[in-house]
Amino acid sequence: MNAPKPVLDLFSSELRVVNFGLESFGETLAGLGVPVVQVDWRPPAGGDVAMIAALDSIKNARIDVEAANALAVERILKGKPVLVGIGMARDVVPGMRPNLVLHAGPPIVWDRMCGPMRGAVIGGLIYEGLAKDRSEAEKLAASGKIDFEPCHHHAAVGPMAGVMTSRMPVWIIENETYGNRAYATLNEGLGKVLRYGAFSEEVLERLRWMETDLAPVLAKALERHGPIDMRSTIAQVLQMGDEGHNRNRAGTSIIIRELAPHLVMLDESREKISKVLSFMNANDHFFLNLTMPSAKSVVDAARGIEGSTVIIAMARNGTDFGIQISGLGDRWFIGPAGIVNGLYLPGFKAEDAAPDIGDSVITETSGIGGFAMAAAPAIVKFVGGSPADAIAFTERMYEITLAESEAYKIPALDFRGTPTAIDLRLVVEKGILPVINTGIAHKDPGVGMVGAGLVKPPENCYRDALVAFAEKYASTGGKR
Amino acid sequence: MNAPKPVLDLFSSELRVVNFGLESFGETLAGLGVPVVQVDWRPPAGGDVAMIAALDSIKNARIDVEAANALAVERILKGKPVLVGIGMARDVVPGMRPNLVLHAGPPIVWDRMCGPMRGAVIGGLIYEGLAKDRSEAEKLAASGKIDFEPCHHHAAVGPMAGVMTSRMPVWIIENETYGNRAYATLNEGLGKVLRYGAFSEEVLERLRWMETDLAPVLAKALERHGPIDMRSTIAQVLQMGDEGHNRNRAGTSIIIRELAPHLVMLDESREKISKVLSFMNANDHFFLNLTMPSAKSVVDAARGIEGSTVIIAMARNGTDFGIQISGLGDRWFIGPAGIVNGLYLPGFKAEDAAPDIGDSVITETSGIGGFAMAAAPAIVKFVGGSPADAIAFTERMYEITLAESEAYKIPALDFRGTPTAIDLRLVVEKGILPVINTGIAHKDPGVGMVGAGLVKPPENCYRDALVAFAEKYASTGGKR
Repeated sequence: MNAPKPVLDLFSSELRVVNFGLESFGETLAGLGVPVVQVDWRPPAGGDVAMIAALDSIKNARIDVEAANALAVERILKGKPVLVGIGMARDVVPGMRPNLVLHAGPPIVWDRMCGPMRGAVIGGLIYEGLAKDRSEAEKLAASGKIDFEPCHHHAAVGPMAGVMTSRMPVWIIENETYGNRAYATLNEGLGKVLRYGAFSEEVLERLRWMETDLAPVLAKALERHGPIDMRSTIAQVLQMGDEGHNRNRAGTSIIIRELAPHLVMLDESREKISKVLSFMNANDHFFLNLTMPSAKSVVDAARGIEGSTVIIAMARNGTDFGIQISGLGDRWFIGPAGIVNGLYLPGFKAEDAAPDIGDSVITETSGIGGFAMAAAPAIVKFVGGSPADAIAFTERMYEITLAESEAYKIPALDFRGTPTAIDLRLVVEKGILPVINTGIAHKDPGVGMVGAGLVKPPENCYRDALVAFAEKYASTGGKR
Repeated sequence: MNAPKPVLDLFSSELRVVNFGLESFGETLAGLGVPVVQVDWRPPAGGDVAMIAALDSIKNARIDVEAANALAVERILKGKPVLVGIGMARDVVPGMRPNLVLHAGPPIVWDRMCGPMRGAVIGGLIYEGLAKDRSEAEKLAASGKIDFEPCHHHAAVGPMAGVMTSRMPVWIIENETYGNRAYATLNEGLGKVLRYGAFSEEVLERLRWMETDLAPVLAKALERHGPIDMRSTIAQVLQMGDEGHNRNRAGTSIIIRELAPHLVMLDESREKISKVLSFMNANDHFFLNLTMPSAKSVVDAARGIEGSTVIIAMARNGTDFGIQISGLGDRWFIGPAGIVNGLYLPGFKAEDAAPDIGDSVITETSGIGGFAMAAAPAIVKFVGGSPADAIAFTERMYEITLAESEAYKIPALDFRGTPTAIDLRLVVEKGILPVINTGIAHKDPGVGMVGAGLVKPPENCYRDALVAFAEKYASTGGKR
């Protein structure tokens, strides 16, 4: 009976304890007067055996993951989005065609679309002249004659439903460093709008005005002004209380003041130009549709790097939330779109909400938006929480990112660069999900925005992507 | 020899010390293993006997100081500055006349004026057509034929040299709650400008364009737009990284976007309107000349309240720093203008600086500017220090103010209202001087801005005012 002796010794000598992980063990001992040093530790991936195996497998991958990620980080940090013009989707968006409807998020068929996305598709088909009313549009959408594809498959992004059709004008953003381009429609304003699934005559009328007046006038003013450096502009707005996703008042202001002197000089009627200026002034989210393709153009340059675990897309279609990984090509890993936890507009409540929707999470993917909330404490009046939460969200994101932006700085964090380049491994290993702030659409088509808040992406899509990555790059030569 | 015994007991028994004030006493004991509780305490007014007597005298004043201050606070909190128009100084500024030159700060004669103020006076006299060049202007200024009076004596405020002459256009701000008005010239932009003492032909040419083009065009656009609620606008810019004194990018942006749709509609040439928009877009301090009279109109409503210790003006003329107290009428208490501690533009250094100058400290007097630096962490890139300093400055100002703004909120401080209504008693009692951030003028006329930073007002003017207040309101019936 010698073996148990050391254990007995433990109880007869004075205890000095170092407690790893779960604090309650240490607290119990401390309550008994035992000196305890607490070490903050959690098992990787919450102790999930399959995830630990995948992480281990990636450590021994047949490719240098760190080098691949270093390249992805370099591409993202060096990206320089520049607003170069406005064009019609059919003329500039790759692969655009009359019977194609682009939508937000990962691929989805008509049958599985949520209310607001269906509403936006209906509106898009009527706008294109392919259907004359809701019932014709629904029939056509279900007929198989219309192709539905993600914006992301066409170098584009769209907020909320994200519906883009061939006759819609789009912002053209060029990543000056790498030459790739990205596109987004122009923001329609607040209230009843297509992106929230509204398709009444008022909505369509506005879309037609955007095509005939807004876009051509802005295009000419922009041509007169010259390209707008979006990297510099976004850097500025982060010092002016915007975070680049749901607070866009500074950005919208800057675009207006930059273009106004040139708008005035156009050979167009005063009324037309004044209406363009009033429209922008009345809509503080006007700038969102510029940050989104800017972010897209930057992360797209880090797409398809063999061996990189950097996340290069996150997007939601209102039914599914999906992510793409640099080293895993164009494959989507999806999970259920979550319910947004936030503040509701008067007259609406959580039961009215559609699940999480839109490509606007491209901003977080590129290191702004929710990742830069510390720069925009006033946003909590819109999405809920406290300014301290806003800072905590940003600080937490440094734990799952590989770099800090060299252009986008947060004054409140002593001008630290925003957390940039999300590493799939870190998300799973640490169990920390990307923080996303977002608008909330009504679940029924045609109603519109009902609030804004924060949403948790589904954890399984990150886990599935990790397993797929481990399999692809296994040193023993897993499935490619 | 019984008397010293308790003292000896002290050394033979175990010491437990509560240490008030100077920490080093406690630290010495703590270093010897004696348990010490430190109490943060300082003698009032740094132990100055005359100041303590004045503070005591005010406690027993023949008037209810607390009630008087409550009224002053109410007036300041309820003030609602509204931009109602643009007029010519000679038409709208009370008491304006052709041979009158208004200047920043407390009263000063030509002989005592600093370089930049002399330069601005020279420019003003040439602009008015009263002199044809520098030497004529200097002779005229010294002749006694020109009256020099503070802007503050004419319901006006001016940045830096603050020179206003009768032909200059001015913003008209009305305090909607109390009906009083305040005035300021329009901001000239950066580089060589009159307010920094420059008076070259380029400077005068710009002033003439401001009179003939800028002001009339803006006046018409403003009339078409309708009055602009400056309280709401300043509240917004404090959520967009401005503090209302030296960071004005958000404010300038908002004014542009509000007026642009109306500017376009005017029956004026495109070129003229475009130049107006470009001029505003090129000058992020354009908004400063709107916050200043807004602040002035608000604190002016709290002027002349018998028994109130609230500070209702602080201002500098480049030679003297002066303050006015609500309960002490229009009397100035002055001390030497300080040297600004800050960041210099390339090619300049501290030796080039003129002493502290300008009425812009009216912003701090009203509870924004330096008092709201926590709202504008990015300002430290302009005035020096760290974002943590910016927050500390604001937090410290709560110690010398009587209220928190109900309109102006600081997101980073959980939307706490800005520290508002400076109490002269608290400044002296606590030895905490108001924090002021400001631009730095070159000491020679005609050069311009050389930097920006923070400046300490001279303590003696607060002490002198306190003594004067104690005398006036002494319960035994002091001098009135």
